[in-house]
Amino acid sequence: MSLSNRVIVEITEMPKLKNPQLVCGLPGSGYVGKLAVDHMIEELKGVPFANIFSPSFPPQVLIQSDGTADLMKNTLYYCKSKPCDLVLLSGDAQPVSPESEYEMADEITRICEKLGVKTIYTLAAYITGTFTKTQKVYGTSTSAEIVKEFPKHDILPMNSGSITGMNGLIIGVGKRKNITGICLLGETSGYVVDAKASKSILETLSKMLDLKFDLSGIAKKAKDTEQLVKTIEEQMGARHSAESLPMTQPDKKLGYIS
Amino acid sequence: MSLSNRVIVEITEMPKLKNPQLVCGLPGSGYVGKLAVDHMIEELKGVPFANIFSPSFPPQVLIQSDGTADLMKNTLYYCKSKPCDLVLLSGDAQPVSPESEYEMADEITRICEKLGVKTIYTLAAYITGTFTKTQKVYGTSTSAEIVKEFPKHDILPMNSGSITGMNGLIIGVGKRKNITGICLLGETSGYVVDAKASKSILETLSKMLDLKFDLSGIAKKAKDTEQLVKTIEEQMGARHSAESLPMTQPDKKLGYIS
Amino acid sequence: MSLSNRVIVEITEMPKLKNPQLVCGLPGSGYVGKLAVDHMIEELKGVPFANIFSPSFPPQVLIQSDGTADLMKNTLYYCKSKPCDLVLLSGDAQPVSPESEYEMADEITRICEKLGVKTIYTLAAYITGTFTKTQKVYGTSTSAEIVKEFPKHDILPMNSGSITGMNGLIIGVGKRKNITGICLLGETSGYVVDAKASKSILETLSKMLDLKFDLSGIAKKAKDTEQLVKTIEEQMGARHSAESLPMTQPDKKLGYIS
Amino acid sequence: MSLSNRVIVEITEMPKLKNPQLVCGLPGSGYVGKLAVDHMIEELKGVPFANIFSPSFPPQVLIQSDGTADLMKNTLYYCKSKPCDLVLLSGDAQPVSPESEYEMADEITRICEKLGVKTIYTLAAYITGTFTKTQKVYGTSTSAEIVKEFPKHDILPMNSGSITGMNGLIIGVGKRKNITGICLLGETSGYVVDAKASKSILETLSKMLDLKFDLSGIAKKAKDTEQLVKTIEEQMGARHSAESLPMTQPDKKLGYIS
Repeated sequence: MSLSNRVIVEITEMPKLKNPQLVCGLPGSGYVGKLAVDHMIEELKGVPFANIFSPSFPPQVLIQSDGTADLMKNTLYYCKSKPCDLVLLSGDAQPVSPESEYEMADEITRICEKLGVKTIYTLAAYITGTFTKTQKVYGTSTSAEIVKEFPKHDILPMNSGSITGMNGLIIGVGKRKNITGICLLGETSGYVVDAKASKSILETLSKMLDLKFDLSGIAKKAKDTEQLVKTIEEQMGARHSAESLPMTQPDKKLGYIS
Repeated sequence: MSLSNRVIVEITEMPKLKNPQLVCGLPGSGYVGKLAVDHMIEELKGVPFANIFSPSFPPQVLIQSDGTADLMKNTLYYCKSKPCDLVLLSGDAQPVSPESEYEMADEITRICEKLGVKTIYTLAAYITGTFTKTQKVYGTSTSAEIVKEFPKHDILPMNSGSITGMNGLIIGVGKRKNITGICLLGETSGYVVDAKASKSILETLSKMLDLKFDLSGIAKKAKDTEQLVKTIEEQMGARHSAESLPMTQPDKKLGYIS
Repeated sequence: MSLSNRVIVEITEMPKLKNPQLVCGLPGSGYVGKLAVDHMIEELKGVPFANIFSPSFPPQVLIQSDGTADLMKNTLYYCKSKPCDLVLLSGDAQPVSPESEYEMADEITRICEKLGVKTIYTLAAYITGTFTKTQKVYGTSTSAEIVKEFPKHDILPMNSGSITGMNGLIIGVGKRKNITGICLLGETSGYVVDAKASKSILETLSKMLDLKFDLSGIAKKAKDTEQLVKTIEEQMGARHSAESLPMTQPDKKLGYIS
Repeated sequence: MSLSNRVIVEITEMPKLKNPQLVCGLPGSGYVGKLAVDHMIEELKGVPFANIFSPSFPPQVLIQSDGTADLMKNTLYYCKSKPCDLVLLSGDAQPVSPESEYEMADEITRICEKLGVKTIYTLAAYITGTFTKTQKVYGTSTSAEIVKEFPKHDILPMNSGSITGMNGLIIGVGKRKNITGICLLGETSGYVVDAKASKSILETLSKMLDLKFDLSGIAKKAKDTEQLVKTIEEQMGARHSAESLPMTQPDKKLGYIS
C-alpha cells in the first residue's frame, strides 16, 4: 500500500535492531495506550531516534514546561532488550482526518519494513461506558494463528465489531506488507485517564514478549497524562481563536484527539 | 476521466472473460444492492480475484467471526456463466467523501476497461419512506436505447431526480469511457435491510441477463446483513474513540455507510 | 495561478471567435445568474462545445426527462454575434468545497486564455432578505476603469463586502491572468427563483455588450428552473442514501448548491 | 519540511535585506496581531513586494473602497531600518483548513530562507474571556535561550497550553528550518478589536528589536479594522449564497477568520 507521502520523518539515528517488535501507544480513549507505552519508554530507557510530523496533526504548537514551543509530533524510541529488541511509538496526537490516518499508518509500517519489524502491537481501550471492577484485556490480530494463542495469555478474543483509528489501521495496513499485527484492548469506562487499564495490557504484553519491567510507577504517570489531556482539550475548544485560551470551554464535538 | 489514483487494487488473478458484464452491489440504503450481489456471489459461486482498498474508506479494521481483523475493502468476483460471464462487486463500505467517490468510480471503470466489460449494472434502493406492499423496480441508464427497453422488463423508467453515491457515479463515469450503465432501483422503505427489494431487482436482472439462479435463500442472507449493518453503525458512533464500543449510541448523522 | 488540475474538460469543437467575451451563469442564490445565461443560450442559439466535469461536483447523476442519466457538469456554449462573439457558461452545480472552487475558477480562466477571452461577466444575486419592488443592479469589477463607467449603465457600484463562490473567484483568478472581470448582481429576496432579477441584469448586460435579444420568455424559464432546483435540493437531503428519494425532506444545511 | 505547494506567490521585487527579521500579523482573535503589523507597515513605510494567494483562503473576492474586487491575499512588505531590516506580513485571512495552515506556514518559512530571515516574530492574542485592566504580554519561543530572556523584556513566559493556527505553525515549521521563532501574545478579552493589546505587544517588540516608531495613531486604526471584520463576518454568514449580503446574520460557527 503506497500513498502520496506528505508525512515528514526526521531521523536522528537509524538503530540496528535484532528481531525488533513495534509497540504503539498513541493518544486515544482513556489514554490507555499512550500511558502504557510512555511507561515502557521510561522503564526500558527508550532512546528517541525519529520524529514524525504531519500536516494532518492538529495545527498548533504545544508549549513545554520549559516555556519552549514545538509542533505536535509522534516519536519513535528503541530499546535493546532480551529476548528481542523493541521499537516504541508514542506521540502528542493522531491525524485529524480519516484519509490522513491511512497515510500515517502507511508511513509507520514503511518505517517498520526498514527496521525489520515483523510484529506490531497496538495498545488500545475497550470502552464499556460504565465503571467496572474487572480489568479484562481483549484482543484481535491480522493472523489467525495469533488469535488461537489468545486464551493462553488470558486475552478475550473479539469476534465482531471493529477497531477504528490508528490502532486498527496500523495493523490493517501492516497486513498488506506481511507484518503481523496484534491489537490489545484494555477494558475501561472511557471517562478518565485509566492507569489500571494500561497496567492490565502491559501485564499481558509483558507475558507475550517474555519481557519484565516495573509497573508500580504507572499510577503517577496517569496524573501527568491527565494534565496533558486537559491542555489539549482546552486548545481544541479554542481551535479557531488562533491562540491559547486556558479558560475556554472545550468543544467536545471537535474530538481531534481520538 | 482520469484522477490521481490513491486507490489500491490487489489482484490475485486476472481472469479471461467472454463478453463480461459488471454487477455492483455496494452497501447503501436498505442494503438492497449489497444483499442482492452477495446472493449472486453465493449462488453463482463467484471467485474472488481482486481486493480494492482506499484511504477514503472508513478508517477502521473490521473484526471477522474468526477473531481476525482486516481493512475495509471492496472485492471483485468473477463467474463463468451462460450466456455471458459476470464480474460481481461487493464490499464493506463506500468511500466517505464526495471526491473519493468519483475517484473510486474512476478506478472501478478502469478495471472494467481492462476486463473488457461493456455494460455495468448498479443495484440500488428506491426509498419511499413508507412501508409498501408493492415491490416495483425503477431504472435509469446512460443509454437512451436501454431506457426504451425498460417496459419490456417491467422496469419503471425514472424521468427526474438523481442517483447519488457510487451507484450513480459508476454509470456516469463509465459513460465517459463508452461503457453502458444501467441502474436498477428496488422499491423499499429505507428503514430495514430489505430482502424483498433485493429479490425483485434480482428477478429483473435475471431476465435482462437471461441468466437463472435460485432466489429462495435470500431472506436468510438479510439476517446476516442486518448483523453487519448493526456492527458498522455502532462503530461509526464510536468513530473518535479509536476503539470498538458495541454499546455506544451510534451518531446517525455520521452516515459513513450510504 | 496554476493548480493541480483534476477538472476534466471534454471539448467537442474548439470554436474560432472574434474578440469573445465570457458570460457566466452558474447555479446560485435565486438562480438569478443561471436563469439569465440559460435564457441567453436559448435566444442567441448558443452552440455547446465543451463539458466540464469535476470530482468536486455533487457525487450524483442527474436523470434527464428522457430517462437517461448523466454526471453533473458545466457546459460552455459559443454564439457568433455582433458586435462581439460570446462564450456562455451554464451548469448543474458549483463545486462543493472552497478549494475546488478555486480550482474550477482556474480551469475556466485557462479556457478563456485559449479562446482569447479578454473580459468576463459573472451574473449573480444581490440578496436583500426581503421582497422589494425595485430591481436594482449592483456591480463590481477587477478594473477601476470599468467601475468608473458603472453609473453610465445604471449600475450601483459596491464599495464594501465581498462576492463569495464562483462569481467572485472567476473574476479574481482572471485578474491574475490579465483578464478583466465584471460581476453584475441583481437585487433579489433570495427566497425564490427570481426571473425579474435575471431580466434586470440581462437588460444591463445587453446595454454593456451593445447586443439585443428578446427578454419576454424569461418568466416561463423561471418555472423550469424552479423544478430543477426542487429536484436537486431533494437529492441533497437524501445525500447519504445513495439513491433518489423525491419525498425526502431536504437537509437545508447541506447547501451543496450555492 | 516540504509539502506539495499549491500556494501562489506573486513577487514584484525581491529586496536585498541586511539581517532581516520577519514580523507576522495575520487576522486572528481580537485582530491584535494584524492591527499591530498594519500599524508598523504605515509608520515604517513598508514597501509591498509579494502577494500570497491560496485556494485555502475563503473562496471570495473582497470589494475595496474604490469599488474594485480582488482575491483574498496575504502581503509581504519590507522596511529598511536600523539596527536591522524588517519583513512584515499582513493579510485578509488565514487558510480555512488545518492542512492548508501547515502548507502556508511552509511557504512563508521558505520565503524567509530566501530572504535570509533568521528570526520570526508572530503577534497574537492571549484571550482571557473577560475585560481586564491590565495589558500583559505573554510569550513562547522555539529557542530556550530566548525564553530565558523574556523577563528582561517584561514578557510572561507560558509554560503550558498551545498556540493554534498560523501564529503557532509558522514558528513550529520554522524551527525545522533552523529559524528561531518567537510568539508574543497580548492580553485581550477576545470580544473586540483591541488596539490596547496591539499597542502593548508593539511596545515589547519595539524594545526587543531596539527600534522606535510612533504608537499614537493605533487607536484610529482599530476603527478601520473593526469595519473590515464586520464585512468579512457578514460574508461568512452568507457563505453559501455565492453573493454578498450585508444584512445576513453571520453564522458564528463558520469561523473562517481565526
